[in-house]
Amino acid sequence: MSELDLPVVEFAPDRWGNPAHAIALPAGTQAALDALGIQPRNAPVAPEDVVLPGPAVPDAVRTALEAAVGAAHVGDGDMDRLRHTRGWSTPDILRMRAGDTADTPDLVVRPGSHDEVVAVLRACSDGGVAVVPYSGGTSVVGGLAPDRAGFAGVVALDLGRLDALVAVDPVSRTATLEAGMRGPRVEELLLAEGLTLGHFPQSYEGASIGGYAAARSAGQSSAGYGRFDDMVVGLVLATPRGTLTLGTAPKSAAGPDLRQLVLGSEGTLGVITSVTVRVRPVPQERVFEGWRFPSFEAGTEAVRRLAQDGPLPTVLRLSDEAETAINLADPSGGPTDAPGGCLAITGYEGEPDEVAARRARATAVIEQCGGEPAGTDAGEAWRRGRFHGPYLRDPLLDAGALVETLETVTFWSNVPRLKAAVTEAVQGALGEQGTPAIVLCHVSHVYETGASLYFTIACAQSDDPLAQWARAKEAANAAIRASDAAISHHHGVGTDHRATYAEEIGPLGVDVLRAVKATLDPAGILNPGVLVSR
Amino acid sequence: MSELDLPVVEFAPDRWGNPAHAIALPAGTQAALDALGIQPRNAPVAPEDVVLPGPAVPDAVRTALEAAVGAAHVGDGDMDRLRHTRGWSTPDILRMRAGDTADTPDLVVRPGSHDEVVAVLRACSDGGVAVVPYSGGTSVVGGLAPDRAGFAGVVALDLGRLDALVAVDPVSRTATLEAGMRGPRVEELLLAEGLTLGHFPQSYEGASIGGYAAARSAGQSSAGYGRFDDMVVGLVLATPRGTLTLGTAPKSAAGPDLRQLVLGSEGTLGVITSVTVRVRPVPQERVFEGWRFPSFEAGTEAVRRLAQDGPLPTVLRLSDEAETAINLADPSGGPTDAPGGCLAITGYEGEPDEVAARRARATAVIEQCGGEPAGTDAGEAWRRGRFHGPYLRDPLLDAGALVETLETVTFWSNVPRLKAAVTEAVQGALGEQGTPAIVLCHVSHVYETGASLYFTIACAQSDDPLAQWARAKEAANAAIRASDAAISHHHGVGTDHRATYAEEIGPLGVDVLRAVKATLDPAGILNPGVLVSR
Repeated sequence: MSELDLPVVEFAPDRWGNPAHAIALPAGTQAALDALGIQPRNAPVAPEDVVLPGPAVPDAVRTALEAAVGAAHVGDGDMDRLRHTRGWSTPDILRMRAGDTADTPDLVVRPGSHDEVVAVLRACSDGGVAVVPYSGGTSVVGGLAPDRAGFAGVVALDLGRLDALVAVDPVSRTATLEAGMRGPRVEELLLAEGLTLGHFPQSYEGASIGGYAAARSAGQSSAGYGRFDDMVVGLVLATPRGTLTLGTAPKSAAGPDLRQLVLGSEGTLGVITSVTVRVRPVPQERVFEGWRFPSFEAGTEAVRRLAQDGPLPTVLRLSDEAETAINLADPSGGPTDAPGGCLAITGYEGEPDEVAARRARATAVIEQCGGEPAGTDAGEAWRRGRFHGPYLRDPLLDAGALVETLETVTFWSNVPRLKAAVTEAVQGALGEQGTPAIVLCHVSHVYETGASLYFTIACAQSDDPLAQWARAKEAANAAIRASDAAISHHHGVGTDHRATYAEEIGPLGVDVLRAVKATLDPAGILNPGVLVSR
Repeated sequence: MSELDLPVVEFAPDRWGNPAHAIALPAGTQAALDALGIQPRNAPVAPEDVVLPGPAVPDAVRTALEAAVGAAHVGDGDMDRLRHTRGWSTPDILRMRAGDTADTPDLVVRPGSHDEVVAVLRACSDGGVAVVPYSGGTSVVGGLAPDRAGFAGVVALDLGRLDALVAVDPVSRTATLEAGMRGPRVEELLLAEGLTLGHFPQSYEGASIGGYAAARSAGQSSAGYGRFDDMVVGLVLATPRGTLTLGTAPKSAAGPDLRQLVLGSEGTLGVITSVTVRVRPVPQERVFEGWRFPSFEAGTEAVRRLAQDGPLPTVLRLSDEAETAINLADPSGGPTDAPGGCLAITGYEGEPDEVAARRARATAVIEQCGGEPAGTDAGEAWRRGRFHGPYLRDPLLDAGALVETLETVTFWSNVPRLKAAVTEAVQGALGEQGTPAIVLCHVSHVYETGASLYFTIACAQSDDPLAQWARAKEAANAAIRASDAAISHHHGVGTDHRATYAEEIGPLGVDVLRAVKATLDPAGILNPGVLVSR
């Protein structure tokens, strides 16, 4: 296994992303908050001030874990355990700010190989200790908050040492990647081979290969590079019963596609230790530009036509009027004096001739639908700021605002109904609590038959922002279900979407998942309560 | 449900395809057989002369079935039962020609709705009667030959009455199709809406929606329209425990993609009664043309570059030197005096401007790789004859030849090794039996990371052609496994590939499938012994 070439980032337990990239609120934003009377409240507890009880894992299990991975790779320090507590959702951050350590693991175990992962799972299965597979730690749906009832302890299984580029097949254009590699490391190592994965979720700086796979990640360039589950051609799963190796070909008719049963299983069926993915040559040309549509309807027509008849840009997203006005695309800018309408971003990556031809044809479609050019500056601003938006949440929480996002996906004909239903549900649930909300929306990912909608919600915090958001989230979940849409496009199920997901797949679907889990994880130690209830 | 508009085709129990399309051997073929000393042998038993034992299903179950679907829709006539016996593989045809009725179902039950399918499954589950879901009846891997041991009888569940186009969503470009619709009916009904599914497997005239889904079909236009499993966005599964409805969006992160667990399940987990699929506008332009490459290696380089860097034609296939010499692309032609090399077919469908642009760019790639134009006549000849090839098998069997096909799929870098291994294995196994074989091969489907190889094998029949072929098939299966390829690209697993498939997914994979089956089909009545052993 190669040594880390990138600086090691120490992520904070109570903040989004890489601490070196933290940003302050733009002046305009603070002025707007002041005008709305939003003031700091619910002062946070500093992680350094949190005192944890000693780890609860039985001595025999700890001894077995130390035998499996080496004592140096079993951590029980408070800050280590806090860093492995929950993920990056607003509720998760609020809980940490409140000093709530109910979900903190007892130990952090860092295996150095697939076989060591299997050994850890066997030790925990034998000892009745729950395991939270942890790679990026970026879940925003409560995917790192297992139900510890009935277990002798909880171990965070940190895959960070599994960070090798194992193999590259330049003819087949595949690469085998270990699960603990975070996004920047993947791209750095592939770049040396002239290749790219092309997967850029907003959590890119923290998220990792294992999480991409386990939670069916979709990146901002999905129009061109596909979803992560489209990229995976093979995977290796460690389970308490041993190893399941899947994927002998790009596609086959050899039975059900069991890869697609593991992808999205969110650490409940096993621990994905490596994946083989389709990779592509590093693009020689990149062009990003902005477009302004007179209405969301006109913009939706354009992105739908591009998705259905082509050509597809590599990046394609469309903000609604409210999001365009706030100009989230450029967090350094704050509210703008832009001429209204709906901003779309198109990006093209590839060989220069191909990019030029594709861009010309896409431009014709966009203009037929009423799009007016907003220039490459707007596109470049979006590209530069593509990972920055979520960093605004921490200073907004400090300032007394409540900010969160949620997303869903449906078929094209259902997009207007779904957008209206979710907006109304969230505004209703927060308005009823005396904290009227702004709800922003964009089309984040497109398919021939449908598209995902990504919502950003902001309002003033109440005294109990967790309860406040829980009501809004419950209303959103119900609206999504009532609209016949999927409860998540790319965030996953975790615990936050579990009840709605059970309705979505029905009791037989839940039974199927439980049966698969009982087969691979007979003691039920893997992420108990995540995805489906116990 | 609408009435059938197409003439009802009565498929014969012992022949490929639509009897109206049967063809005689071209004169050149007969001359070649004569030159090789191949003479008629193993004279067939006519289906009309076969006498079946009475149906074994217990009276109580039959009564329940008649209550579920109506007595008129429960058939026990000999020819009806024979027509529902096995599929269209050479071994299946040979068994029927030998008068072997061991796999003949006792009754043919024709439900008229999803709810009636559920009722049939419950009646059979309660009564211990095995069920063979039957839609097109075109399996070539023994998928219609369940293990009847321990059951009180076997029912063929014929989905032919479920043949409606249930819904079309022109905005989302989806259509909901019942499982019993055969290919031509699907296209006829969609054509009236200006739409096409674009799915044209070689079994198109007989195969049906339910089979496409249950066995992960891939059509000859897969480069442009995708595989059938790529087209499915939703499905409804009838099981003995009730209904599983899957698919709320094109793609989602809401757990594992359970659609992909049902697709490829080959009737063992439940009966797919309808699917919602992505459809496309009927193309305004269609161009097919031939290309000749100096070698299979050069042709493979061309099709790989088109698959990886684009643009992809709608149809893309490449015959090896042997297949090119035989000229299977035009079964009316027989051996040709063509100038050797490897013939490729490219087809383009879409809007005229888009087709012209795509064709120009693809042509440049092909010519860079050494392709020489063979003209649109060669392309049109292939298009006209695209469903005809298999009809040659019946007169070849009559003439004393043994003919069969098999297919596999792997990553690009492994294509040469796989092709050599399968060719050598089959030639060895047949040569050892004193019946040297010709083995033809083409690249039939391409992906960014790999391609499928489709083999056609012909030799003289021995006295026991079933045993003769079984040795060749076993050798081919072993060669595919030893080459790390998938045991099937689009034919499926059935019973013929079951043992190799178990090696491919390993014991944990088999356990997973058994657990899912036990959940949805607790009595194990659905296609027992297909896909995984009991």
